[in-house]
Amino acid sequence: MIKNDLFLRALKGETVQRPPVWMMRQAGRYLPEFIALRDKYDFFTRCQTPELAAEITVQPIRRIAPDAAILFSDILVIPQAMGIDVEMKPNFGPYLPNPIRTIQDVEKVIVPDVHETLGYVFDAIKLTKEMLNDEVPLIGFAGSPWTIMCYAVEGQGSKSFDKAKGFCFSHPEAAHVLLQKITDTTILYLKEKVKSGVDAVQIFDSWGGMLSPVDYQEFSWKYINQIIEALADDAPVIVFGKGCWFALGEMGKSRASALGVDWTCSPRNARYLSGGNITLQGNFDPSRLLSPIPVIKKMVHEMIDEFGKDKYIVNLGHGILPNIPVDHAKAFIDAVKEYNQ
Amino acid sequence: MIKNDLFLRALKGETVQRPPVWMMRQAGRYLPEFIALRDKYDFFTRCQTPELAAEITVQPIRRIAPDAAILFSDILVIPQAMGIDVEMKPNFGPYLPNPIRTIQDVEKVIVPDVHETLGYVFDAIKLTKEMLNDEVPLIGFAGSPWTIMCYAVEGQGSKSFDKAKGFCFSHPEAAHVLLQKITDTTILYLKEKVKSGVDAVQIFDSWGGMLSPVDYQEFSWKYINQIIEALADDAPVIVFGKGCWFALGEMGKSRASALGVDWTCSPRNARYLSGGNITLQGNFDPSRLLSPIPVIKKMVHEMIDEFGKDKYIVNLGHGILPNIPVDHAKAFIDAVKEYNQ
Repeated sequence: MIKNDLFLRALKGETVQRPPVWMMRQAGRYLPEFIALRDKYDFFTRCQTPELAAEITVQPIRRIAPDAAILFSDILVIPQAMGIDVEMKPNFGPYLPNPIRTIQDVEKVIVPDVHETLGYVFDAIKLTKEMLNDEVPLIGFAGSPWTIMCYAVEGQGSKSFDKAKGFCFSHPEAAHVLLQKITDTTILYLKEKVKSGVDAVQIFDSWGGMLSPVDYQEFSWKYINQIIEALADDAPVIVFGKGCWFALGEMGKSRASALGVDWTCSPRNARYLSGGNITLQGNFDPSRLLSPIPVIKKMVHEMIDEFGKDKYIVNLGHGILPNIPVDHAKAFIDAVKEYNQ
Repeated sequence: MIKNDLFLRALKGETVQRPPVWMMRQAGRYLPEFIALRDKYDFFTRCQTPELAAEITVQPIRRIAPDAAILFSDILVIPQAMGIDVEMKPNFGPYLPNPIRTIQDVEKVIVPDVHETLGYVFDAIKLTKEMLNDEVPLIGFAGSPWTIMCYAVEGQGSKSFDKAKGFCFSHPEAAHVLLQKITDTTILYLKEKVKSGVDAVQIFDSWGGMLSPVDYQEFSWKYINQIIEALADDAPVIVFGKGCWFALGEMGKSRASALGVDWTCSPRNARYLSGGNITLQGNFDPSRLLSPIPVIKKMVHEMIDEFGKDKYIVNLGHGILPNIPVDHAKAFIDAVKEYNQ
């Protein structure tokens, strides 16, 4: 039994005294203790060493005490496990030296044995669960197939992922073969994450908002929904589609337990578009954590008032930024705990 | 009298046989004749030499024959005229070596005499009008104050303009002083563009979609609306806010003649959100021009069916991409002309 089960209760839609709170990228570059580890170990060493991944995961629990932990990892461990080279370049971000550009490239991509290729993630989960000692739940995550494909085709981050989109629109059959392989791998991966101990999973569709509503259905949602269907009996599934306000209606009808929303979607719009029944998660603008602390606290309370305290998980609308002062991050968490008191 | 007045009639909401069509960035890098000039003259030489700007403006009219021309220029001529250094680095984009970061920086920014600093734009308009010979209307444009401020503070392009947003949220008074100076300059600039001969103006709010609906009202829409109010009696004003679906309701109540929408907003959503009465412009995904030509033509016809042929200007949902084959761009224009025949 998890001692602080606010997050799991909100996912079930139960009535709570106050909503739970966590922050996307809460284990990250705004924390001095994270920077100390980053300076000693490179990116994939941190991901692939269970002791490091677990330590990084619990750092924010100690420092700012959110109501859930999220396993430190990266969405790009999946393409890496599928045989696609992935590098993480300092001051540049992900770099995939051999991007997918043809059907022949797609055919070479494998659906791996996740125990062989991603065992370090499952070990990190087991270790993290021990360290958390059932204080708060642990979230596992994966990128959406579309978002993973964006990197696999583009070869790096991008403002608009035009190469990835061009690949879909000029070679749709090849794109669908690749998307299905990523989906199959992701399902195996997330099922094993749940078996290893995560209490919920989140799918990050970071680049779904680059697609039109019609293309989103074809190239992103169709595959996300396969993952939801495969996982829904195992653990609660949260779907966060950045910029995907236009798909909230479809998402709200799925078996997902909660939907993440970004800050461009007002609480009222988010409730309306998602059908009004599903738990929502979000949506504080990460840049707004640069406001003075009293402004942050006031805005958090207004946000809870607008979403309503039930069927709601307080979060940012995207990952926390590296330049946020730790006391501002803590003020965000504290503001939620002070709600209703 | 403009011979092809479809575009102006759509801006007035008149009934038309078919909607007009033009493309954002139609004078640009997908055209071989543009590339030939780009290889000879650097960016600001092209902007600041009326003969070159006029020639580039009419290139797409000759090649693919859209229903309107848009003056070749750049939104960053405004901060440049205000005393902020702006460079255009090849393979990098805009670079502002002395970005605005303090109230002292803001105080140094001037509202210039636009005749002195931007006379080359007005000369280019007069020359272009002669070259167009009243065949099609000419559009002039400016960036929104918020979008200009994004570059002035960030110092370069960005995925999320976190520095610019951080400046607003930590120094809101300074941000508002700067936004008002940009607004004042833009009004003087656009009024003089109209006097020089442009038949309509478009305001590009390229980065408005980075803001929450509440922050959008405070840091972007308030200033765009000042520009609309100042210009509405002089010429039709089109507002294109990329990612600003959440503000279409407010925009639809303004004195703007048309609203641009991007491809994440379905025609049905766009009509609903904007109130159903105002002319809309958009919203073909630029990457979709990489689809085979028959697919492009089919999608364009479906798009017109969904928006309706009246109170509608066919366009892309953002600028055309450099890698679009010219015959695909032409197919987009031709598809509109073939509609209803």
